[in-house]
Amino acid sequence: MEPAIVLVRPQLGQNIGMVARAMANFGLSDLRLVAPRDGWPNPEAGPPAAGADHVLKAARVFASVSEALADCRIVFATAHAQRDLRKPVLSPRAAMAEVRASGVKAGLLFGPERSGLATHDMLTAQGIVTIPAVPGFASLNLAQAVVVLAYEWRLSTPGALDELPRSPERIPATQAELDGLLAQLFAELDAAGYFFPPHRAPATRRTLAGLFAAARFTSEEVRTLRGVFRALSGRRARRPQDATG
Amino acid sequence: MEPAIVLVRPQLGQNIGMVARAMANFGLSDLRLVAPRDGWPNPEAGPPAAGADHVLKAARVFASVSEALADCRIVFATAHAQRDLRKPVLSPRAAMAEVRASGVKAGLLFGPERSGLATHDMLTAQGIVTIPAVPGFASLNLAQAVVVLAYEWRLSTPGALDELPRSPERIPATQAELDGLLAQLFAELDAAGYFFPPHRAPATRRTLAGLFAAARFTSEEVRTLRGVFRALSGRRARRPQDATG
Repeated sequence: MEPAIVLVRPQLGQNIGMVARAMANFGLSDLRLVAPRDGWPNPEAGPPAAGADHVLKAARVFASVSEALADCRIVFATAHAQRDLRKPVLSPRAAMAEVRASGVKAGLLFGPERSGLATHDMLTAQGIVTIPAVPGFASLNLAQAVVVLAYEWRLSTPGALDELPRSPERIPATQAELDGLLAQLFAELDAAGYFFPPHRAPATRRTLAGLFAAARFTSEEVRTLRGVFRALSGRRARRPQDATG
Repeated sequence: MEPAIVLVRPQLGQNIGMVARAMANFGLSDLRLVAPRDGWPNPEAGPPAAGADHVLKAARVFASVSEALADCRIVFATAHAQRDLRKPVLSPRAAMAEVRASGVKAGLLFGPERSGLATHDMLTAQGIVTIPAVPGFASLNLAQAVVVLAYEWRLSTPGALDELPRSPERIPATQAELDGLLAQLFAELDAAGYFFPPHRAPATRRTLAGLFAAARFTSEEVRTLRGVFRALSGRRARRPQDATG
C-alpha cells in the first residue's frame, strides 16, 4: 500500500508542486498538507508540478498532524537531526523496505522548509528517517527530501528495475573474426613499412592483438574496422609507392 | 574520486542553485556548466543553493561537452529514454558503484530542463543512466535527477550510513520485571472485579500477558506502567467500594 506524503506546515507553493512531480515520477499519489502557510489550493504549485495535476487535485488539507495521520498504521518522521526522542533511526531504504513489507498504510512526515519538523510533530512516529547527507550540510530542500524517499519507495517496488530499458545485447565477435581483422591489419601495416625494425615486429604484433582483444568489439564493429583499415591503406596506396611497400 | 556533475545547456539559474545544494548535501563539489543559457555567474542560482556557495563559486563553464569532459575517464549520460544509441543502460545505483569501484574521474551528463540530452551529447558516453521512474511520467526535474545520483554516490561512500545517528538502545525488560507488572495488574483487576465471569479469567489473563509481551517494553517503561496502574487503581479505591471487590 503506498505511503502518504504528509507535508507539515509547508511554506512555499512551489515546493508543494515539486513534491507532487517527484511523487508522480515514482508512483506515489497520496499527498496530505497540514496547515499549508499560504492556503490551498495554491496557484504557485501548478507550474513546478509539471503535469502531476492528479496529485495536486487529490491533495487533502488537514488542520493537524493527528488528523492527517488518522488512517495510518505506521508513521515515520523525516528529520536530519535526531533530537532527544529516543526513537529508532532508519535510513530511507530501511524505512521504505519496512513500509513495503508491512502492507499497511504508512504516513511519512516532512517538516516546514525553514525549520523541519517540530519535536511535538514527531511524538507519535515509530521511527525517524534520516537521509544520509554530509554532516555539516545535511539540510535538504523539502522536495529533494521527498525525492529520496519516493525513489526508495519505487526501488522497493517488485520489478521496478526490470522496467528500465534493456541494455542492447553486445555479443563479442568470434575469435575467427578477430583473427581476420588482425591478419588484414598486419598485412596492411607490413605493406606500409610499419614493422620497423623487423626484430621488434613480434612484440608490436602482440601489443596490437592485445589491444583489439581487450576492446571486445562486436562482429559488426570488426567489419566496420576492417573497412576503416582498408580505406586508410587505400588512401596510402594512392600516394607514390612507398619504398618498403 | 568524486564524479563531476556536468549540466549541459542548463536553462534556469534556480535549478543550478538547487543542483549545487544537492551536491553539497551528498558530498559532491565538482560542478561543470556547458553553455548555460543565461550566462554565468547567475544571481538566481544563489538563494536556492542555500549555502552551497563553495560549489557555485568553484563551478566551471565550458563551451562544449567535449571540453567539459576532457579529464574524465568514464562518462555516463543521464536520460530517461534510451534512444537508438546501443549503449549499456544502468540504474543510478549500478552506475555509482561502477564509478566508485573504478577510482578514476567520471563525468555525469545531465541535459537541459526542457528536452534532456541530445543524442549528439551522449555519443561518447560509456553508458546511459536511467532513473527508474514510472513509465509515462518519467521526466524528472533537473535538480531532482541530480539528487538521485548524488544520493547514490553518497550511499556508495564506505561508512556513509554509519554516520547516521544511532538508534537509541532499547533493551527489553527482564521476564521477572514483566511478571511483576502482570502480577500487579492482575491483582488490581481482580480487586476491581474485572475477571467476570470467573471461568473466562484464565483466557483473559493469557490475552493480557500476550499483549504486554508483544509490546517489548523496556525496564523503564515497565516501571512507568506500574505507576500508571497504581494511580488508576488508587483512583478507583477512592470511589465507594465495588460490590465485587
